Amino acid sequence: MAAEKDEIKLIGGWASPFVMRPRVALNMKGVVYEMTQETVGKKSDLLLKSNPIYKKIPVLIHNGKPICESMIIVEYIDETWSDGASILPPDPYDRSIARFWTAYVDDKIPALIRKLRLLVKGSAEAEVEAEKLNAALQLLEEAFEKCSKGKSFFGGDDIGYLDIAFGSQLGWIKAVEKIVEIKFLDKEKIPGLVAWSERFCAHEAVKEVMPEADRLVEFTKMLLSGSFAK
Amino acid sequence: MAAEKDEIKLIGGWASPFVMRPRVALNMKGVVYEMTQETVGKKSDLLLKSNPIYKKIPVLIHNGKPICESMIIVEYIDETWSDGASILPPDPYDRSIARFWTAYVDDKIPALIRKLRLLVKGSAEAEVEAEKLNAALQLLEEAFEKCSKGKSFFGGDDIGYLDIAFGSQLGWIKAVEKIVEIKFLDKEKIPGLVAWSERFCAHEAVKEVMPEADRLVEFTKMLLSGSFAK
Repeated sequence: MAAEKDEIKLIGGWASPFVMRPRVALNMKGVVYEMTQETVGKKSDLLLKSNPIYKKIPVLIHNGKPICESMIIVEYIDETWSDGASILPPDPYDRSIARFWTAYVDDKIPALIRKLRLLVKGSAEAEVEAEKLNAALQLLEEAFEKCSKGKSFFGGDDIGYLDIAFGSQLGWIKAVEKIVEIKFLDKEKIPGLVAWSERFCAHEAVKEVMPEADRLVEFTKMLLSGSFAK
Repeated sequence: MAAEKDEIKLIGGWASPFVMRPRVALNMKGVVYEMTQETVGKKSDLLLKSNPIYKKIPVLIHNGKPICESMIIVEYIDETWSDGASILPPDPYDRSIARFWTAYVDDKIPALIRKLRLLVKGSAEAEVEAEKLNAALQLLEEAFEKCSKGKSFFGGDDIGYLDIAFGSQLGWIKAVEKIVEIKFLDKEKIPGLVAWSERFCAHEAVKEVMPEADRLVEFTKMLLSGSFAK
């Protein structure tokens, strides 16, 4: 499947939590890749050609073949470079649980972040959406206890599928904390997740690709001010 | 993984396209299971306990362990009864393509069906939504040509992951054809898909679990008239 002289390109963007997912997976597998940065508001010809259905990043191009959708790419990476650290757990039931909570993360977290980052601190709307994010994090705290079984990560001793799916949202959760001035990663409420988030962000495969919250806040301001091309 | 005296229950409902998915997969693997029928508008204690997050069917309960979300269940079945016919293709790239188009089906088809079944034939709104469904089917026609490579199914010689995902929507597509009186499975426009749909519906693993369009139309009328418990 994976050959010595593989050509591996990732069409991405530094601020995208979805692009971060395959980057962490490629780092875990020790795969060297070239990343191209899409410009916000524009779509490169390569992107339009590689993902004609959704025209969205990330797209992984492996020896000329495009693979789209962040977690599908992560599974592709896991299956193609299968001799490296395993991303999905080996047991079918554990795999189904990791997939279930990954679907939950995708169902709830990105939409709440997209709403919250546009809201004004202290507004009633921000309070309502913050409550929804807190409720989702509370459920993920319980999921962490069950999945990690006392170990460091959802995936056990090392990061796995659900760690990658959820962990890639942490930069934006921290950015939104600054924008609406509400603490979401709160040690009092979700101690397991807070400790996990620190371990995740410090992981060798993660730390160089995790965007800083301040840069994401700045990115949001530019987005709101219309500084990017349409 | 799968033992001789496995206890396999499926919490389902005859009209749900999502429940049909694990049923086809279990049939393909020759797995005997017990199905309980949820009553529309009620939730059984077993469902509430087994899927506390979404409270939705289907749920597969394998030796007391619940697995939720239709395509996650299908993958679980494929991985657990791995000595039967393979549902996902063996090659990582082919797997990513099957997963991509399955996500596309889930993104487009059920929402369009839910809208269309409530609309009045000949209305402008029905025309607009019908156009969207036709556009999605046109893309799936192209996907069929690429995935099947001249064979009978998306999965090749036998039905696979994407066949199950998309094929389980066919009963409802036919029901909606009757409700809004628009032909969607049109040989002139999507000849490959129409021929595929006939093969899929006649498949041994499918024919006993595919609901008849007329029953689904009747079900929709009862839903609209408020005949089901709330």
